[in-house]
Amino acid sequence: MTHKIAILGASGYTGAELIRLLAEHPSYEITALGAYSKAGQDMADVFPHLRHLALPKLVAFSEIDFDAINLCFCALPHKTSQEVIRELPKHLKIVDLSADFRLRDAEAYEQWYGNPHSAVEMQGEAVYGLTEFYRDDIAKARLVAGTGCNAAAGQFALRPLIEAGVIDLDEIILDLKCGVSGAGRALKENLLHAELSEGTNAYAVGGTHRHLGEFDQEFSAIAGRDVKVQFTPHLVPMNRGILTTAYVKGEAEVIHDTFSKAYASEPFLQVLPFGQTPSTHHVRGSNFCHIGVTGDRIAGRAIVVVALDNLTKGSSGQALQNANLMLGEQETSGLMGAPIFP
Amino acid sequence: MTHKIAILGASGYTGAELIRLLAEHPSYEITALGAYSKAGQDMADVFPHLRHLALPKLVAFSEIDFDAINLCFCALPHKTSQEVIRELPKHLKIVDLSADFRLRDAEAYEQWYGNPHSAVEMQGEAVYGLTEFYRDDIAKARLVAGTGCNAAAGQFALRPLIEAGVIDLDEIILDLKCGVSGAGRALKENLLHAELSEGTNAYAVGGTHRHLGEFDQEFSAIAGRDVKVQFTPHLVPMNRGILTTAYVKGEAEVIHDTFSKAYASEPFLQVLPFGQTPSTHHVRGSNFCHIGVTGDRIAGRAIVVVALDNLTKGSSGQALQNANLMLGEQETSGLMGAPIFP
Amino acid sequence: MTHKIAILGASGYTGAELIRLLAEHPSYEITALGAYSKAGQDMADVFPHLRHLALPKLVAFSEIDFDAINLCFCALPHKTSQEVIRELPKHLKIVDLSADFRLRDAEAYEQWYGNPHSAVEMQGEAVYGLTEFYRDDIAKARLVAGTGCNAAAGQFALRPLIEAGVIDLDEIILDLKCGVSGAGRALKENLLHAELSEGTNAYAVGGTHRHLGEFDQEFSAIAGRDVKVQFTPHLVPMNRGILTTAYVKGEAEVIHDTFSKAYASEPFLQVLPFGQTPSTHHVRGSNFCHIGVTGDRIAGRAIVVVALDNLTKGSSGQALQNANLMLGEQETSGLMGAPIFP
Amino acid sequence: MTHKIAILGASGYTGAELIRLLAEHPSYEITALGAYSKAGQDMADVFPHLRHLALPKLVAFSEIDFDAINLCFCALPHKTSQEVIRELPKHLKIVDLSADFRLRDAEAYEQWYGNPHSAVEMQGEAVYGLTEFYRDDIAKARLVAGTGCNAAAGQFALRPLIEAGVIDLDEIILDLKCGVSGAGRALKENLLHAELSEGTNAYAVGGTHRHLGEFDQEFSAIAGRDVKVQFTPHLVPMNRGILTTAYVKGEAEVIHDTFSKAYASEPFLQVLPFGQTPSTHHVRGSNFCHIGVTGDRIAGRAIVVVALDNLTKGSSGQALQNANLMLGEQETSGLMGAPIFP
Repeated sequence: MTHKIAILGASGYTGAELIRLLAEHPSYEITALGAYSKAGQDMADVFPHLRHLALPKLVAFSEIDFDAINLCFCALPHKTSQEVIRELPKHLKIVDLSADFRLRDAEAYEQWYGNPHSAVEMQGEAVYGLTEFYRDDIAKARLVAGTGCNAAAGQFALRPLIEAGVIDLDEIILDLKCGVSGAGRALKENLLHAELSEGTNAYAVGGTHRHLGEFDQEFSAIAGRDVKVQFTPHLVPMNRGILTTAYVKGEAEVIHDTFSKAYASEPFLQVLPFGQTPSTHHVRGSNFCHIGVTGDRIAGRAIVVVALDNLTKGSSGQALQNANLMLGEQETSGLMGAPIFP
Repeated sequence: MTHKIAILGASGYTGAELIRLLAEHPSYEITALGAYSKAGQDMADVFPHLRHLALPKLVAFSEIDFDAINLCFCALPHKTSQEVIRELPKHLKIVDLSADFRLRDAEAYEQWYGNPHSAVEMQGEAVYGLTEFYRDDIAKARLVAGTGCNAAAGQFALRPLIEAGVIDLDEIILDLKCGVSGAGRALKENLLHAELSEGTNAYAVGGTHRHLGEFDQEFSAIAGRDVKVQFTPHLVPMNRGILTTAYVKGEAEVIHDTFSKAYASEPFLQVLPFGQTPSTHHVRGSNFCHIGVTGDRIAGRAIVVVALDNLTKGSSGQALQNANLMLGEQETSGLMGAPIFP
Repeated sequence: MTHKIAILGASGYTGAELIRLLAEHPSYEITALGAYSKAGQDMADVFPHLRHLALPKLVAFSEIDFDAINLCFCALPHKTSQEVIRELPKHLKIVDLSADFRLRDAEAYEQWYGNPHSAVEMQGEAVYGLTEFYRDDIAKARLVAGTGCNAAAGQFALRPLIEAGVIDLDEIILDLKCGVSGAGRALKENLLHAELSEGTNAYAVGGTHRHLGEFDQEFSAIAGRDVKVQFTPHLVPMNRGILTTAYVKGEAEVIHDTFSKAYASEPFLQVLPFGQTPSTHHVRGSNFCHIGVTGDRIAGRAIVVVALDNLTKGSSGQALQNANLMLGEQETSGLMGAPIFP
Repeated sequence: MTHKIAILGASGYTGAELIRLLAEHPSYEITALGAYSKAGQDMADVFPHLRHLALPKLVAFSEIDFDAINLCFCALPHKTSQEVIRELPKHLKIVDLSADFRLRDAEAYEQWYGNPHSAVEMQGEAVYGLTEFYRDDIAKARLVAGTGCNAAAGQFALRPLIEAGVIDLDEIILDLKCGVSGAGRALKENLLHAELSEGTNAYAVGGTHRHLGEFDQEFSAIAGRDVKVQFTPHLVPMNRGILTTAYVKGEAEVIHDTFSKAYASEPFLQVLPFGQTPSTHHVRGSNFCHIGVTGDRIAGRAIVVVALDNLTKGSSGQALQNANLMLGEQETSGLMGAPIFP
């Protein structure tokens, strides 16, 4: 059976990545591509790397016949997303890649995003899209909220440890190194090649990054108590990839065992042998996530390092993984492509 | 039917790229991986980006049971390749990625490579592996000689023009911009990140690059007379990609028409609308090749720009395309993956 | 004696580079920094790498007391520059880094830049700022027009050869590889790190780049006849640097001799031994320019390769070199700093 | 007065950086350049970016007349350095850039470096080269041991805080992001452009990096008790630069005040306004070091971020700063050049 797919916001990087993944998928057909300012354009002009594909033109959302669509990916900016999704027909399955439905609590949403939510009633309905931990709910969901890319990386590094109670919940530090595509295709001075290449810097320092909202919600829910992590992202001169260095207090070998068990049957989560550390080089362009655990010279401390591609496992690959579940396809379908190296 | 595949020289970049492409192919099974100094190692250690795959260990060639193999890719250094291939059983189909069987003439080989050929008798048997131009012969061949990556890029820019007689054969200049993976995984000072990033330089200036041997052989054969092009490669700080800027004398629109006709039914060769120019960004990690034609302000001159990924269309993708033909599979099988961007 | 200096347009890359060079200069004092949208800001906020310097605040041009200034660098956009310079007091020496006074002919200006010149009377007064070839005129000039960065690179590769009559004037091809800072700090999609890194492409193909106006003017004047070169620039993923590969017809050794003589006493123009080729890596951040000559395997052809830093020798370094002459300082003063490598 | 300078190990990156800095220094003359395998070569061949300088040829150490030398920089590998320095004449002032004399304790040296020290008697004599904290001793020293580049970055982030007693000494985490030139010009697979660009990874995880020996020695000495920090370096695709993210427990504003006071009169240590964070982009190629302090959303925690250039402030710039003190020159002489940006 062929599922008919629409992508709203197809002119951004996550939209393009969705198309790349869907193009090779045996049971999906891209039926409509929606955009704002680029409506009317050919995808070959917006993303010349997709020119070999027979894709529909970009159109305004109003021109899309949603009755003919089975599932819609929304790759829109925050706030726009909720306004658009609120108006979509209710038969439609939706995977939202924005931040709009990640936080279940309306107040938390407003605190982190600065505006009241305009589709509060749908917040309750939405299922959090971290596939490996919400698999059953996602399979039954109509609306799935894709996670933040940093939020995904941080949770792969910590969820099983919090669940198993093997680390000190008050002493968690996440130091992230992020590629630039996570910031999208926006025209900002700090994203210019001349400003960004050949150097690195921290940003959103001090606990101000919005993905903290997801960490707080998820980690506290697992622990059954408030958990607040310290989280500092850094911009690194690479296009794709997130490397999470998690500093935790606990026994390194116990931590490694915990991952080995928790992720034993996960097709995309690869736990490295104890003492090895992953690299974003080795997951680029793929849906795989590598996890390494090392003990520190200071007894009772461990370092967990997680590498994933923010555009794939961190957003569009995750979105497809969720869509596969929602449409009854095999979860890994279209996602087993090996990373590109070098 | 599943074809059993061996790769000799699996620890280099072209070997890794072959595995990436083969891993998703529905009718191939990687049965043996051969190496020299890395024999005995797991591929997960040599190339951690392939750790999710169930691959055989790297072994010495002598440990491979070639009777169980249908087709063997040789991704070995020049000179080594001919010595190894000479000794392989004769039932085996072989795609050689080295330079050893590209030149049909033993003298030309010795002139460009500096040593006498040690398998002269096989030189005649080998079919030149530029799929789009040797398709029928490749389908029937036992031994196919993969082209140089620069040689492929240059030929996609020029063959139809020489064939059609629409350019001046004595006034062809090829200025190439090459990514670093074309130089392989060798430990050379000029390939270090600190030496290569953030700058560019020409190399093999003045007509000394070995891929000229292929240009001379092929272009002269098409033209039925001696054709010597001027060719200068440049090393550009990127891992993958070749951009060929070809300066030719002829009518630009005629040249564009010639490409449009010649490549009309080619699945991987995408001719851009007249006046557009391709970018290596838009073919990265794929088997696609983009061709653009522009006229110059000086009447009677044109610029042909060709972009491809040296590791895919320039070597391992081409090799798989040839293997597909040799084994009766669909030519495009396993090769239609979209480029990775950004 | 201390000369008082103003910079108009101090918030762009050439402005910042001027400040970097002037900061170490023994006889200059930066007295005023003018800007438009960033007026009112501290330079430490606009360019944090200059935060250790005691610099004046950015101000609107109207706030600058030009009576207290000896020389003014204008690092403004094209068209704006002529409108501003027209109104500046006449006692002021001016080095303009824009394109506005490079072309002596009003019609040629309008043809390449698309608008009529609004200070035609000053076009005649302005001296073309390619120091090595206009030294005496520059020393006496009130208004010097800095050259295009590509135009500088191309002229260093060709002027002595045209002058000496050692190459065929109808068969000159310039293939340039340019770093991204040449495009300035403008917010354009193709200048984003994610769009530009890890790939390369040609632009302004076919003889449409505006720096051709300078080539036409200068080369024709030297030759005493119309000379039209073919010129294709390429964007390379590096911040600084231009590599010019010039394809010419002539005797390579004669060409090398011609450079050796012409540049024998030039402090910044380094002619490499015959057969060696330069790299932009080796001039980064400096006012030096490396020139290499190689013969081709095709008799009667040569390749001239020139490397310089577009922000230094290609614009701000050149501007300071000219200012030194105009103010009676030693030409090399403040400009002998070695390149940064790696 | 002109001081005569020798550099032993002039063919590595720190050697080249020393020459770049010394070339512009008014009172130093480079009299001898020593090398091993590259002895006999011209510097223009080993480092073409220095070709405009009139430098002595590289020679074997035995050919150097040390009687004619005032000060010798040793930029040699660890272990080699002590063997060479042990034999140098005793009148000679020496700045050693290797690790050999950084640790005062012979056992600590052996523990971190794996071999017994062969010049134990000189270990006591050597002064630790972190200029800002050992200024007086350095001025009087004959032998100064340049610090590790990571060790310098970490100490600028922590020394005043430990001294002032404003942070918890048992809860210090240093997460470093390092450019590749810190690893030197060695031919290692992981330093190839194709392996390193476009990705990031941790290395020496778990407290195994040798610069920990310096942290332990220095921090414990200041605190008057054992202090062990947790330290994880990461390799980032950039040539120059170290970004240190220090996670500490203490009051952020107190910490900021502590830096402001401690570094108030330091010419190279720039404390940013509270809440701002530095970037390695803004110190590249310079001897400046930027320090930023931010509070975390978790009360009682702060993030200190330090940016410096590993080749300049982290090694060769520091070495020159020390040499200036040892020879009675102004400390900042030759070191006030602004960073290169972009």
